[in-house]
Amino acid sequence: MIIITQPAVTDAQIDHIVERVEEFGLKAEILRGSERVVIGVIGPEDVIREKPIAAIPGVESVFAVLKPYRLVARNGAAPPPVLIGNVPVGTAQNVVLISGPCSVESKDRLFSIARSVQKAGARVLRGGAFKPRTSPYSFQGLGEDGLRLLADARAETGLPIITEIMDTRDLALLEKYADCLQIGSRNMQNFSLLKEVGRSKLPVLLKRGFSATINDVLMSAEYILSEGNPNVLLCERGIRTFETMTRNTLDLNAVPILKAKTRLPVVVDPTHGIGLREFIPSMALAAVAAGADALMIEVHDDPERARSDGEQALVPEAFHDLVQRVRAVATAIGRDV
Amino acid sequence: MIIITQPAVTDAQIDHIVERVEEFGLKAEILRGSERVVIGVIGPEDVIREKPIAAIPGVESVFAVLKPYRLVARNGAAPPPVLIGNVPVGTAQNVVLISGPCSVESKDRLFSIARSVQKAGARVLRGGAFKPRTSPYSFQGLGEDGLRLLADARAETGLPIITEIMDTRDLALLEKYADCLQIGSRNMQNFSLLKEVGRSKLPVLLKRGFSATINDVLMSAEYILSEGNPNVLLCERGIRTFETMTRNTLDLNAVPILKAKTRLPVVVDPTHGIGLREFIPSMALAAVAAGADALMIEVHDDPERARSDGEQALVPEAFHDLVQRVRAVATAIGRDV
Amino acid sequence: MIIITQPAVTDAQIDHIVERVEEFGLKAEILRGSERVVIGVIGPEDVIREKPIAAIPGVESVFAVLKPYRLVARNGAAPPPVLIGNVPVGTAQNVVLISGPCSVESKDRLFSIARSVQKAGARVLRGGAFKPRTSPYSFQGLGEDGLRLLADARAETGLPIITEIMDTRDLALLEKYADCLQIGSRNMQNFSLLKEVGRSKLPVLLKRGFSATINDVLMSAEYILSEGNPNVLLCERGIRTFETMTRNTLDLNAVPILKAKTRLPVVVDPTHGIGLREFIPSMALAAVAAGADALMIEVHDDPERARSDGEQALVPEAFHDLVQRVRAVATAIGRDV
Amino acid sequence: MIIITQPAVTDAQIDHIVERVEEFGLKAEILRGSERVVIGVIGPEDVIREKPIAAIPGVESVFAVLKPYRLVARNGAAPPPVLIGNVPVGTAQNVVLISGPCSVESKDRLFSIARSVQKAGARVLRGGAFKPRTSPYSFQGLGEDGLRLLADARAETGLPIITEIMDTRDLALLEKYADCLQIGSRNMQNFSLLKEVGRSKLPVLLKRGFSATINDVLMSAEYILSEGNPNVLLCERGIRTFETMTRNTLDLNAVPILKAKTRLPVVVDPTHGIGLREFIPSMALAAVAAGADALMIEVHDDPERARSDGEQALVPEAFHDLVQRVRAVATAIGRDV
Repeated sequence: MIIITQPAVTDAQIDHIVERVEEFGLKAEILRGSERVVIGVIGPEDVIREKPIAAIPGVESVFAVLKPYRLVARNGAAPPPVLIGNVPVGTAQNVVLISGPCSVESKDRLFSIARSVQKAGARVLRGGAFKPRTSPYSFQGLGEDGLRLLADARAETGLPIITEIMDTRDLALLEKYADCLQIGSRNMQNFSLLKEVGRSKLPVLLKRGFSATINDVLMSAEYILSEGNPNVLLCERGIRTFETMTRNTLDLNAVPILKAKTRLPVVVDPTHGIGLREFIPSMALAAVAAGADALMIEVHDDPERARSDGEQALVPEAFHDLVQRVRAVATAIGRDV
Repeated sequence: MIIITQPAVTDAQIDHIVERVEEFGLKAEILRGSERVVIGVIGPEDVIREKPIAAIPGVESVFAVLKPYRLVARNGAAPPPVLIGNVPVGTAQNVVLISGPCSVESKDRLFSIARSVQKAGARVLRGGAFKPRTSPYSFQGLGEDGLRLLADARAETGLPIITEIMDTRDLALLEKYADCLQIGSRNMQNFSLLKEVGRSKLPVLLKRGFSATINDVLMSAEYILSEGNPNVLLCERGIRTFETMTRNTLDLNAVPILKAKTRLPVVVDPTHGIGLREFIPSMALAAVAAGADALMIEVHDDPERARSDGEQALVPEAFHDLVQRVRAVATAIGRDV
Repeated sequence: MIIITQPAVTDAQIDHIVERVEEFGLKAEILRGSERVVIGVIGPEDVIREKPIAAIPGVESVFAVLKPYRLVARNGAAPPPVLIGNVPVGTAQNVVLISGPCSVESKDRLFSIARSVQKAGARVLRGGAFKPRTSPYSFQGLGEDGLRLLADARAETGLPIITEIMDTRDLALLEKYADCLQIGSRNMQNFSLLKEVGRSKLPVLLKRGFSATINDVLMSAEYILSEGNPNVLLCERGIRTFETMTRNTLDLNAVPILKAKTRLPVVVDPTHGIGLREFIPSMALAAVAAGADALMIEVHDDPERARSDGEQALVPEAFHDLVQRVRAVATAIGRDV
Repeated sequence: MIIITQPAVTDAQIDHIVERVEEFGLKAEILRGSERVVIGVIGPEDVIREKPIAAIPGVESVFAVLKPYRLVARNGAAPPPVLIGNVPVGTAQNVVLISGPCSVESKDRLFSIARSVQKAGARVLRGGAFKPRTSPYSFQGLGEDGLRLLADARAETGLPIITEIMDTRDLALLEKYADCLQIGSRNMQNFSLLKEVGRSKLPVLLKRGFSATINDVLMSAEYILSEGNPNVLLCERGIRTFETMTRNTLDLNAVPILKAKTRLPVVVDPTHGIGLREFIPSMALAAVAAGADALMIEVHDDPERARSDGEQALVPEAFHDLVQRVRAVATAIGRDV
């Protein structure tokens, strides 16, 4: 850690800072520049990170040298993929397609969509039974009934299923049905929920909060790993910016950065990311070119009657066409779908 | 609701849109402009709001005419204040000071801080027992032990207490000790938690998410009211922008807007809002001038040993001075502290 | 245009609004909903757009139905490419590579870089002679000497050159040397400069301001076209968000949207867009997959001695490798480099 | 300057970094921590700031210790006020009111508005003759005719005038008429214009770009001072955030920070800052409480016929009322209007 002192720092203040640092069992090295004094703190950074160094008189600012996440950090060797059911995500060879409706609405609809996305090339089925909606008056999902339908769709198609968890009290219920738990964007810093799924054996798809920095995402993943669950997938799904023409701004910059910094697979959700149906295919192709390990794309066979997010669902034919184009781009970068 | 059609919309598409609207029991009125066709939808907007109109072919965009929140909306008469213990917040006359440490750390420290903020003029005591921290390795709060100390501090000082709830499973526990529940910024769209506190009899201080629009804040408050709890206070505590010099950007624009649009009291937290100790007083004064009903300010008597947020805590003397200045500004706008 | 009136609007106010609309030679149609009154305004929107309708008592808000840009809008047929020298940008077949140093520094360096990027596949040479720098103490460019060196490099390699204009007074000078004028991000809404280059015969590469909405970009391009110059290329180069790990957030969402809405070619600059050398290749590939017509990438053969932006320059070998990968992705989507 | 090296940095790389630093005539001190190597660079920071240290292999990141602005920085003593005509802005005692129409429209209107704002308490008259408009089809101002009218209004009322400069070629013209030059938000990083007004004898009101960091503002002011003109006023006028309910987000956090960091007076423009007429008074009061030295507020006597920004203009009566309230708040903090 590096301490930058204030321009007018006194020798007594510097002594006091050094004393405080040594009180924590660390070593302080003083660098006297032409105008400022900088103090390097040597020792295990974890120990010092949480100490209120910035609150000591004479300190102007403090820079951490080490990254605050340990478990999620990449360390040399190629990290192992994460298994959703029997589908590995995060291998060097494959880009995995995850698809399905926004919400589970009915058995017929779910089965029909599941079969069509499977036929097009999807290997994991998504669908929400518990829906986080901005308005309390919007459709909130079918709950356990929805979970049962998802399990039935898995029995029918063989596709493993991913569905969202919104409440710590629901973990046992979801573990009965799901192959992968999704933490939604709005719960990315619901630390109670992160700890709870950290104690599960199921993999967790962690969606980036729409105003979470990359560092925030990594710290939230660290919560899950620190509880013992190493099977986390990170999902970029759009951030909030000043742009009003799109629902969100899909941040593909996050893809190569997350790949470089962590051992975790990176999923991209262009559906929520841009939120405009006609532009989802372009963003899906770009995500693959940027290095995404998987795509999550919403499909509905009657969008104008969908109970949520109809305006951004692809119809099955459009999804089928997109898969061909995704395959071509994947091949161009040495992977396959 | 107003439907804007695409430039190349066909008559058949328009007929289909009208049909769909009528299917929902609503009336469609067609306005043919010189270049575009606009369709007004007449009827109860709640019915149509959740229908996927934007997914119908030929529709370019859709504007809601009515506000999606009903219960939190201001409707004429002066709304009643919300009581925290016996302290009314949201009266025309008073600006209420809420103060205390970031975290409850120990009995001695809490009591000492509680007494000094009370003496300076604070009427509600704040303190965290469950702490939402970005890192899993940071101090997570004392839990129930912290709640007990808060209750003891209330017994000692008479100040009602406000403390944060992070998990739906903790409501019963918190109800045993707290006078007001706080929902933190990162849980503002934790809808399970919002519903849960909506069933409580305690008032709820809802902190604005750091990237929540004003509309998002109102919808989250609507969740709580829709479950039966009308006692919600809204708290502006800084939003996330591109600025890096401050911890957050305290958005005082939200104060008069929230006051105009809702029946709920508006609290401002300049401590987290700007996050730099030396500038907290200026922002506190500005918040009062902007019309805030209450201020929430963190105080610590030994910031450089605080277990959280020491760098932004005021020492008791600084808080005492600030209260005098707050009082002068409150008086200038016809209120008192 | 659609006028939404306030909830408490009176009949007298509605009459006054209608009167005002008719005063402008337009027609008003009143839609009375169950709770609100909406007024549709029929007639040429250009006439009404600039009238201060929102200032009329009783008006709550106003929505424009038509887009405020006419000349830049796409209208059916495939738009013609823009020629930089003899290189067409914006054809269905080709992705064009624009490359060179950030600043022109010396003859040897410029020639060496020009030859290496040409060999790798670049078809246009970039280089700054007038440099917009955040600090007045930073290198400000070689001025006309730099322009002369660029012209010499063109004579040597045959590559047409693109260079930045920063001052309306420099147009005649730049027209002597350049094949394409660049308007930098910080000048995207320098309307005097936009008008000035609108009177030039040279094509203009307009960089998106780092906090310009897509609509703002289109309006700035409209300025140039409205002065008579149809040869504008739009360049996405990163927007400002809350993320601090990258220099900017390259917004690839803008690529398909700009392609759909305008007749202008779309260039992507991943160098400034993400600002971190190691991640530029991934973003370049993603830009091509998203549909970019050209890439602009900075190359330097001794980055650690570069006079500007050394930390984000690719060395020639890295650029050469990247071109191979760009070609593969371009081929996958049916284009070539 | 502090260099943080990469985790896997080699000794040869460290030697190379040190060599490079010494090549610049500076001294390098190596701090070996438990996991990282940090290199402190000792010497005049100006020398090293522009060197591409971050481009040297093995360097992960670089922190500047000193601030890159020298001339605008506060240095102890109370800085002198800036004179607009004979009105000092930036004294400890006074908050100055600057008011007038958005655009100069006609002699009668300008004179009428000028007289009414003077009567209410304004001491400087604002009005645009050259208008930066998002659309080329919007009213662009009366040009020199507008300047003449402003000069006439000054002759009539005695109020000094402030008006916007948009083009380097207009400086001589504006110097004939204006008492203070305004640089608009969109030109805050038009460095050619900054240098040009830096050579003027007139004071310059520099509006913060709507996505400029505080550091950016200070660097732009530094441009003006570095050319010899010390008379700069900084103006906060709203930043661009994700909020859509307001035109901009007035950032009052900037007020105490700019006051603390610079020797320049700080003006606040609540009119553009929030952009909603009914909330401008609250933001004006808050700005004064936060420490603003002046307020700039647009007034129009017939907003629904204004040629620009009618929806955010106060009518003279509302401005008059506001001045009384501003005076009360100014008094509460020990100043006067």
